[in-house]
Amino acid sequence: MKIIRFMHENKCFYGKLNEDLSIDRILINDYLELFSDFKCEKTKFSLNDVKLLSPIDAPKQDVICLGINYLEHAKESYKFKGIDFDGQRQDAVYFAKRVNEFKNPNDELVLNGLKLDYECELALILKKDAYKISANFDDYIFGYTILNDVSERAIQNKHKQWYMGKSLENSCPFGPFINTDLTIKQASNLEIKCYVNDELRQNSNTNLLIFDIEYILKELSSYTKLKAGTIISTGTPSGVAMGFTPPKFLKSQDKIECKIENLGSLINYIKVENECSIN
Amino acid sequence: MKIIRFMHENKCFYGKLNEDLSIDRILINDYLELFSDFKCEKTKFSLNDVKLLSPIDAPKQDVICLGINYLEHAKESYKFKGIDFDGQRQDAVYFAKRVNEFKNPNDELVLNGLKLDYECELALILKKDAYKISANFDDYIFGYTILNDVSERAIQNKHKQWYMGKSLENSCPFGPFINTDLTIKQASNLEIKCYVNDELRQNSNTNLLIFDIEYILKELSSYTKLKAGTIISTGTPSGVAMGFTPPKFLKSQDKIECKIENLGSLINYIKVENECSIN
Repeated sequence: MKIIRFMHENKCFYGKLNEDLSIDRILINDYLELFSDFKCEKTKFSLNDVKLLSPIDAPKQDVICLGINYLEHAKESYKFKGIDFDGQRQDAVYFAKRVNEFKNPNDELVLNGLKLDYECELALILKKDAYKISANFDDYIFGYTILNDVSERAIQNKHKQWYMGKSLENSCPFGPFINTDLTIKQASNLEIKCYVNDELRQNSNTNLLIFDIEYILKELSSYTKLKAGTIISTGTPSGVAMGFTPPKFLKSQDKIECKIENLGSLINYIKVENECSIN
Repeated sequence: MKIIRFMHENKCFYGKLNEDLSIDRILINDYLELFSDFKCEKTKFSLNDVKLLSPIDAPKQDVICLGINYLEHAKESYKFKGIDFDGQRQDAVYFAKRVNEFKNPNDELVLNGLKLDYECELALILKKDAYKISANFDDYIFGYTILNDVSERAIQNKHKQWYMGKSLENSCPFGPFINTDLTIKQASNLEIKCYVNDELRQNSNTNLLIFDIEYILKELSSYTKLKAGTIISTGTPSGVAMGFTPPKFLKSQDKIECKIENLGSLINYIKVENECSIN
């Protein structure tokens, strides 16, 4: 099932998106209710008549992100920092992304930064608490969607820890829908691409994750209880702006399209607030 | 005013703690309501008859923490990692601490880790949204309390980013009360101490913060909107377990007392879940 959130005549609704682009309204007040059973109302909408919103308005806690979790992206990241890379990734890198509200599909992202970068990622949402789990991982996952982990590389490096460079206001588009039909096995073999102004920049497959979904859930839940509603973003493949020589950082009016097989396309437009100061 | 949360006959209440240890009950449902006006009820309690809880049950988003924000602690941290320290701190280090629920004063902390450490810190709570602020910082602060940023050094270093080593379940005692009477100027000149089994380990003053409260609020709010309820922990002075040779990591039955002038004492006891595996 594809779950969306949308606006119609200035009201927000949750819905089930059908193949014919019709929408069955779902009656809930909060996305955590989605994780239990719910009923579709008879009210029908059409995708053409509504404004699509991010399927969740805001995460209940910071998003947990994976760093350099594709080998080719590890190489370009180390190169950007001028550090030799030995080709080995022994341990996963986890960091937080603070998100006050997710940005919607097609939103303009008003960003305050100079070295702005895109990161197309497969994200998963938990439907129940996970603490010290080591089996039946599929039972904990509500569904999958796309998360664009927009990053500011100067701030990311300046403060040593990546947290604030990952947490700029307006830096987290999320959507367009949550797919609740995929198993971990299926989610672990999806084409993942990112286009900037229709130029293909990232082109990989989630089967190239260094630390896979089961590994991540087992390890994270060994440290802390992952509460229902927890969102985990699994990392980005190579092809980000800082990977090019010279880097192709984002500028105003850039169009970013993050596309993952079975999860649709998440398109956003860039507006750099302080761009004049660097020209 | 000293604001507490407490349990009496299996019910939770908020209260105003008076000098004579009597408590005036405050009528609210959620701590965010504390930030607007509220009234004290006539119901009286005595501190001796109640169980003290952390003044906030859980943060609304991850706690924002400062890394190595006292010079002497910077030196011991670099030494532990075997890195030369040039004595300069040009930029603040910010990281997230994921907290599912704050631990109460006097709680036993059941922790799963080997290299467990304490960090006594001055924490502040915001009472209104702060975005791109550069003046009148006192107007944004609801109050101050003590946060013990319990850390697992092996996990902190293993994953490169500190996030998960800071986010173990049960690793964040908070309290015992929120002091709403201090100005930033007053909060920036408080003795800060930590005792382990009554042995003085940390002994400093908040006037030795490298990046002070106004600097932190100005910089963080330039990146993202700090929402009402945001909790910021300002970093710990030298004297943590990893700073000793050999390190004095925490073990079961250790008593930790974090003490800050005008903020009381936050006492907790350690229970290491997997301790037998290292003996």
